[in-house]
Amino acid sequence: MSTVYQHSTLAALMGKVLGGSATLAELKEHGDTGIGTFDGLDGEMIMANGEVYYMDGEGTIHHVTDMAKTVPFATVHHASDSSEKVKFSAGNMKEMVSLIDDRELENTFSGVILQGSFAYMKVRSAPKSERPYPSLSEITKTQREFEETNISGTLIGYYSPELYQGTVAAGWHVHFLSDDRTFGGHVLGFDADKLEGDLTIFDNYELHLPIDNKEFREHHVDMDGLKEGVAAAEGSQD
Amino acid sequence: MSTVYQHSTLAALMGKVLGGSATLAELKEHGDTGIGTFDGLDGEMIMANGEVYYMDGEGTIHHVTDMAKTVPFATVHHASDSSEKVKFSAGNMKEMVSLIDDRELENTFSGVILQGSFAYMKVRSAPKSERPYPSLSEITKTQREFEETNISGTLIGYYSPELYQGTVAAGWHVHFLSDDRTFGGHVLGFDADKLEGDLTIFDNYELHLPIDNKEFREHHVDMDGLKEGVAAAEGSQD
Repeated sequence: MSTVYQHSTLAALMGKVLGGSATLAELKEHGDTGIGTFDGLDGEMIMANGEVYYMDGEGTIHHVTDMAKTVPFATVHHASDSSEKVKFSAGNMKEMVSLIDDRELENTFSGVILQGSFAYMKVRSAPKSERPYPSLSEITKTQREFEETNISGTLIGYYSPELYQGTVAAGWHVHFLSDDRTFGGHVLGFDADKLEGDLTIFDNYELHLPIDNKEFREHHVDMDGLKEGVAAAEGSQD
Repeated sequence: MSTVYQHSTLAALMGKVLGGSATLAELKEHGDTGIGTFDGLDGEMIMANGEVYYMDGEGTIHHVTDMAKTVPFATVHHASDSSEKVKFSAGNMKEMVSLIDDRELENTFSGVILQGSFAYMKVRSAPKSERPYPSLSEITKTQREFEETNISGTLIGYYSPELYQGTVAAGWHVHFLSDDRTFGGHVLGFDADKLEGDLTIFDNYELHLPIDNKEFREHHVDMDGLKEGVAAAEGSQD
């Protein structure tokens, strides 16, 4: 049995529920590997080998040791759940779908930890928002993009079937962390010759909702605007 | 912490993945209370106090003791997770939304076990399908409806937010079992003066997918047809 654990929903973020509603300590009970963001949609979170890293809105990476820090959204799993070693010779985000298509995993949640050397890496990070929180599309306008060339590091991310669009961002959602812990973030695109690592096929999707959080409880999900909103907020990953 | 556990998805049923893919024994590890259907979309399943009941396509209730029997879809929880005793004086399915609206639970998974005396109860049950499986809308045409008046029993069911439409049937999905275990099924409508029981507000939604099942793995989810299909297949509950 392997479980991917998600705290809150993308629809809640789209409903401006951006305040932290779970601590890193709580999150670490459910995984040692994962991705997310911090209180106020503050930058990008990467969890690797149980260590937490924060890429701020300026593109600087910080090692986070305060497990009382909170997250409004995150996805984690235990790397020891990995079911399959994979070599991935495809070079970019678009080709990552081959990992799914080749194994008939379109209906399944999967995760990857992929290591290698990247000729090109493009990430983005958002600056922290304050209450009253703006919409994700407003935040998208202020987020910054960062590029690096010839950098070694790790891709950590999750594949979610289209059925769960709105609960999560369907498709691949991947973060990067460089080996020297100086660069990383939400991956917009990359080029690599060869990546190696672990593919985990999850049979359990555990969705934890912050039911005692007033803002979560009261937010309205705009079902009609959801699909368009997800695309705008997450950006094209190619 | 309270967890609602779901095996497979409504989208898989709509994709004709109707073969049993979990045993009752497996299901009972995750709950003693719940609803579902059997291998081949065979009738209606009601789990109450850890006992499993099967309403066949002719409307007859059977007590199931063979825990090797399989289900293609089911939702269960532990009744001991119940967080709140409720009295529900409203009398029909439409008014059950007040249980949700009054507590601001629109974004949350909830469950009920409601007992009382029903002036009127209308349920439906589907006959077992054989491979190659028909679509849910074809099955809907052959399913039968059954009515009773002045009957005592228990409603067991779950509320799912609209965000999860397709993964589950959004809104309330409720089954009935009479106190004398002779009548029950998927509830289409009822009239009652007063019901009492337990409302459980779940902070964890655990979705278990039959990832080793070839038919599940290969089914195609028709996202465009999903919403209309759900409405057709589940019927209006009013």
